[in-house]
Amino acid sequence: MHLRLLPAALVVAVLSTAASADEGMWQPKQMPELAAQLKARGLQIAPEDLSNLAAKPLDAVISLGGCTASFVSPQGLVITNHHCVYGAVAYNSTPENDLLANGFVAGSFADELPADPNARVYVTQAITDVTDRIVEGLDGMDGKGRYDAIDARSKALVAQCEEPGGLRCNVYNFNGGLEFSLIRQLEIEDVRLVYAPPASIGKYGGDEDNFEWPRHTGDWGFLRAYVGKDGKPAPYSKDNVPFEPESWLTVSQEPLAAGDYVMVTGYPGRTNRYRLASEVKDTIDYGYPESVAYFKDYLSTIERTTAGDKAAALKYASTVAGINNALKLYQGQLDGFAQMDDPVGMKRAREDALKAWLAQRGAEGKAQVEALADLERELAADEATRERDRWFPSVASGGLTGTAVSLYRNAIEQAKPDAERESGYQERDAARLEGRMKSMDKRYDANVDKALMKLRIERYLAQVPAEHRVPELDRWLGVGTGDKSAPGLDAKLDALYAGSRLGDEAVRLQLLEADRAAIEASDDSALQFAVQVVPALLRLEDEGEARSGRISALRPQFMQAMIDFNASQGKPVYPDANSSLRITFGTVRGYSPRDAVQMEPFTTLAGIVEKDTGVEPFDAPKAELEAIAAGKGAQYRMESLGDVPVNFLSDVDTTGGNSGSPTLNGKGEIVGLLFDGNYESLSADWIFNPDLTRSIHVDTRYMRWVMDEIDHAERLLEEMGLPHD
Amino acid sequence: MHLRLLPAALVVAVLSTAASADEGMWQPKQMPELAAQLKARGLQIAPEDLSNLAAKPLDAVISLGGCTASFVSPQGLVITNHHCVYGAVAYNSTPENDLLANGFVAGSFADELPADPNARVYVTQAITDVTDRIVEGLDGMDGKGRYDAIDARSKALVAQCEEPGGLRCNVYNFNGGLEFSLIRQLEIEDVRLVYAPPASIGKYGGDEDNFEWPRHTGDWGFLRAYVGKDGKPAPYSKDNVPFEPESWLTVSQEPLAAGDYVMVTGYPGRTNRYRLASEVKDTIDYGYPESVAYFKDYLSTIERTTAGDKAAALKYASTVAGINNALKLYQGQLDGFAQMDDPVGMKRAREDALKAWLAQRGAEGKAQVEALADLERELAADEATRERDRWFPSVASGGLTGTAVSLYRNAIEQAKPDAERESGYQERDAARLEGRMKSMDKRYDANVDKALMKLRIERYLAQVPAEHRVPELDRWLGVGTGDKSAPGLDAKLDALYAGSRLGDEAVRLQLLEADRAAIEASDDSALQFAVQVVPALLRLEDEGEARSGRISALRPQFMQAMIDFNASQGKPVYPDANSSLRITFGTVRGYSPRDAVQMEPFTTLAGIVEKDTGVEPFDAPKAELEAIAAGKGAQYRMESLGDVPVNFLSDVDTTGGNSGSPTLNGKGEIVGLLFDGNYESLSADWIFNPDLTRSIHVDTRYMRWVMDEIDHAERLLEEMGLPHD
Repeated sequence: MHLRLLPAALVVAVLSTAASADEGMWQPKQMPELAAQLKARGLQIAPEDLSNLAAKPLDAVISLGGCTASFVSPQGLVITNHHCVYGAVAYNSTPENDLLANGFVAGSFADELPADPNARVYVTQAITDVTDRIVEGLDGMDGKGRYDAIDARSKALVAQCEEPGGLRCNVYNFNGGLEFSLIRQLEIEDVRLVYAPPASIGKYGGDEDNFEWPRHTGDWGFLRAYVGKDGKPAPYSKDNVPFEPESWLTVSQEPLAAGDYVMVTGYPGRTNRYRLASEVKDTIDYGYPESVAYFKDYLSTIERTTAGDKAAALKYASTVAGINNALKLYQGQLDGFAQMDDPVGMKRAREDALKAWLAQRGAEGKAQVEALADLERELAADEATRERDRWFPSVASGGLTGTAVSLYRNAIEQAKPDAERESGYQERDAARLEGRMKSMDKRYDANVDKALMKLRIERYLAQVPAEHRVPELDRWLGVGTGDKSAPGLDAKLDALYAGSRLGDEAVRLQLLEADRAAIEASDDSALQFAVQVVPALLRLEDEGEARSGRISALRPQFMQAMIDFNASQGKPVYPDANSSLRITFGTVRGYSPRDAVQMEPFTTLAGIVEKDTGVEPFDAPKAELEAIAAGKGAQYRMESLGDVPVNFLSDVDTTGGNSGSPTLNGKGEIVGLLFDGNYESLSADWIFNPDLTRSIHVDTRYMRWVMDEIDHAERLLEEMGLPHD
Repeated sequence: MHLRLLPAALVVAVLSTAASADEGMWQPKQMPELAAQLKARGLQIAPEDLSNLAAKPLDAVISLGGCTASFVSPQGLVITNHHCVYGAVAYNSTPENDLLANGFVAGSFADELPADPNARVYVTQAITDVTDRIVEGLDGMDGKGRYDAIDARSKALVAQCEEPGGLRCNVYNFNGGLEFSLIRQLEIEDVRLVYAPPASIGKYGGDEDNFEWPRHTGDWGFLRAYVGKDGKPAPYSKDNVPFEPESWLTVSQEPLAAGDYVMVTGYPGRTNRYRLASEVKDTIDYGYPESVAYFKDYLSTIERTTAGDKAAALKYASTVAGINNALKLYQGQLDGFAQMDDPVGMKRAREDALKAWLAQRGAEGKAQVEALADLERELAADEATRERDRWFPSVASGGLTGTAVSLYRNAIEQAKPDAERESGYQERDAARLEGRMKSMDKRYDANVDKALMKLRIERYLAQVPAEHRVPELDRWLGVGTGDKSAPGLDAKLDALYAGSRLGDEAVRLQLLEADRAAIEASDDSALQFAVQVVPALLRLEDEGEARSGRISALRPQFMQAMIDFNASQGKPVYPDANSSLRITFGTVRGYSPRDAVQMEPFTTLAGIVEKDTGVEPFDAPKAELEAIAAGKGAQYRMESLGDVPVNFLSDVDTTGGNSGSPTLNGKGEIVGLLFDGNYESLSADWIFNPDLTRSIHVDTRYMRWVMDEIDHAERLLEEMGLPHD
């Protein structure tokens, strides 16, 4: 949870703010522009070094897909968060040998355990500006034409880039399409678990402390990247050898204190700081409240349908954890908005100031004002169908129906040449699609899924107005477009689940090979549902792509105007987060959440003892409590605290996807690992409040103390060149 | 609520700690012993001045009975808490002229409003040590004889003291009976309301913020003491004139800052710091949890029985508020105990250390050790019947049954000479008893009372073991001593409430004059209940008094041992609070409730704006919000805050009864009014933790700001010699 990137399915996000204070998730290439500010804050290395992808520190900062990590030894040792290696630990745990509870320290290379097959290490090798190649000659195309052209050009660039093998390439859109970059990453497939502390350290505080300060979480874990003997990425094999990165980061041995410079390099997923006032309003009025209400009903539905059924409850445990995290995330954003004076007004004021400035700018300004008006119109049109666009696709993306829709869609796409297929159904996606078909059992129970399907259908019926209803779905439901409920719904759903064999893995895998005609001829009730609703999905997808295409011609003009406006005031603009490599910098500092309350920037070992109840999630290992009581590891203490620092706060600007990012000092050495933000930071994805937004890091002094005094990971300390007792 | 003394009916308290740090509610006469400590902390006046009852500041500190207050002008102007003048404001409020909501500022003496008839101002005139006169010749008496002798001697001293009229005298027991003082107070009966801010200032934060920090409550109010033209106390009359006190306190015009010396003089009600480990254990294991559970059931019973009946709900509104306050108070103490390492063990360790020290002390020590063992035995015997002693009297003290029992008891007592009557039924108590009989209607609804009666009877039946059951009550209930329930209870209660005319005020007042025989002959069902159970009440009262008598011979020996033990270490011992005048001193400072969280000692006007929701209890007046926005009253600002301080924290040692106490600086000038303690302070009534225990004060700079900028109480500022805009 925490700052791991949310699965895309949960992100219903939609929005904007200009850079102020140390706010900013900067592109590496922007760092030299910020030289004066960086030096003033305490950066000791050259700002140019933070632009160079091929050298330290940037080439040591890697992505795990959803999390960030870094190399910390010449033998491919990877450091990240405990919650980012959680899957690898769970994968290797059994009831008899519960590594989650006990923790795991590999005593040698041979003891290192293969992580789950989907684990990957992505090493960014190149970022190439491909804007011209994407946008050339797009002017004058209509929306759908523009969307398709961008899509086709992107796919061609990706295919060409991935040609040599062992690589993952993607085209990233910056500033709403003002700029496109092709990012090439080495894709390492053999990832092994090296060390994870017990969950009672690594997940200390659990969900209760999620997004909270003060915090006492030992949120670190170690992996290792392995490659074939030829040094190239290869699937897991006993014969593989540790990957030897060009660079690796060093863990600092110097004290870190309040007021010190820190920076975080990583892969933040998504922010919405440049959204328009109307988009913010829609999110506050409808988007987030609707998500929160749905998540609550979703959770209570799972609770009700899994009561007394432990097997079913286990299947939905990670879904429940994910929804709970998302619920807190969305509710936290709403709470943040509610605390602000007038978030929509703030955005509106920014747009008004921009328009006033553009008005003095002649023809160019006039064109930008018109583009902004056009953008507003497109967004209003989008908002008009928000209930349909939320609930119809959701009905078609349940466990059973979602699988049926994927299988039918796959059959449709497979009939096309690879380059023309929809993303997710290309050759390069085949392994992942098959993986999903295989792993469905672990997260699926027909009774629970049926109840969730009913929940979604009821939302669709209750919310989507008659003029936006989807005839194909209404037909399947046997209702008229004005009907707010479906009398025979339970029987309909019983028949849907009784009449489908998609719960069977072999059937699913076999259907991955089936062609369109075979699926259309099938008597499987879920496939029949898919055959009935996919035409509507495709139609709405086309409409959505046409609108996206039109917006992709307009939003860049708004962003260019914003950049020009800020430039006129001497302010650089960073693009919204898009999962590409970014750098944020600031200082170690606390904050005041309310009058007369001060959050100090460091927590201590004493705070663990204070919180400890002996009951999960506040159940520190006995060995740890004893080591604290005995005052072990005095060399890790911070003088001003008189104790070992556990977690710390800084004002750097991070979001989901940054989890596991190295927190570096002015010399570029690791002083911590970013793992969370405070509750007040959640709404910073939309509007950054420098007084309240804080990132939460685990202090490497705590990590070293645990590795040295509790977990006896001396082998790794030595590998990182760190002293130990 | 807050630190107003809890009504005795709610206090089920029973317990002990030696003085450490600035802990201590000192007797005025002890101040010279503490001279070094006082000077070190910052006292600028002579410590001897704090021993002199006849001079400033002590003679200006007065009691309102449950609250503390002080004279602040030569014309008898009295300053105290808003929640201490609440009754006077409510008494003068009507739906058309809601002074609670609007606030009230008397524009002239003539505009000052008579407070409720029970309002009193008590001015302490003399504290005389009467230990010898109380205890002389008691040795060798048995428990009941000893109890009766102390009671009779006390009553005689009181009667003699009150002889001149206009006085209220009481004998106070210090250190469990080691010392007795006769305290003589002038009793002023004509008390008038002069000024109260609107509840949205004076009660800002309401119950939600009760016992909480950060706090933003404008908890002040002004009364005036009036006397007859002869300068003597007299009942309210238009012709009365303002009382002219010998001394009055000055409101400071100097800045108060963190780290500054402060002291609080007032009338703390009750603490239990010298209770034995066994008493603490019984409280933690049974007393408080039982009270908390009962309060919760009590509240839900009221909620259930008043649902849809607004008149009944209104009658119980103040009871509900009182129970809620008590619930938070008891739960807070339990939470505090739970946070401590081992509160019972701490007390036991203290007793063990005391015993070890006494063991080296020869015969005197041996006698004290034996007395301690005897005390333990008496306490154990007391504990053995705790269920009976809690629930039987409670059954006999409901609204209807309690009234019947009082009337019957009164008839019994009236037959005796005044001096021999039970306290509460003497001549001096007659007016108050009559007042209670009159005011019963305002707090009584038969249906609600019946449900509460049933709740108590069920507790009695379920909890009191067969060997301790009260035959008289069981007979009335028609149950055997082993029965855990009474099948016909509802019908019995219906008959009880249907067959009584005590709901009628005229009937009650008439019965106050009835003799014993008349009441015993009455066919009133409630009186019949009283006639049946009062013999048991008297029998148990006698048993209790006998035990009290025995304990009163033992506890002083334990206290003397404690005092000697502490003296051997150079530590003075202060007696547990007993509603007599005390002085506590310390410094303005915040605290850390948990790792990495710091509570700052001052709140600000900005904090009001931050908390404000526009909805009670966070609904500051529009005029106040506007004055804050406009930055009015810059002269009241504190430079280091850049804002006007609203409330502040100090480490002085206070408890219920201290509400309204003046908080004085080193010169003896008022810098604030004590009105509450933090949540962590609640368990300090038993064990004082200097790291967490804080008192909460309203800053006089905030008071002056509101009086000057919002409420326009310039007349009073001038009367106090304070400048204004």
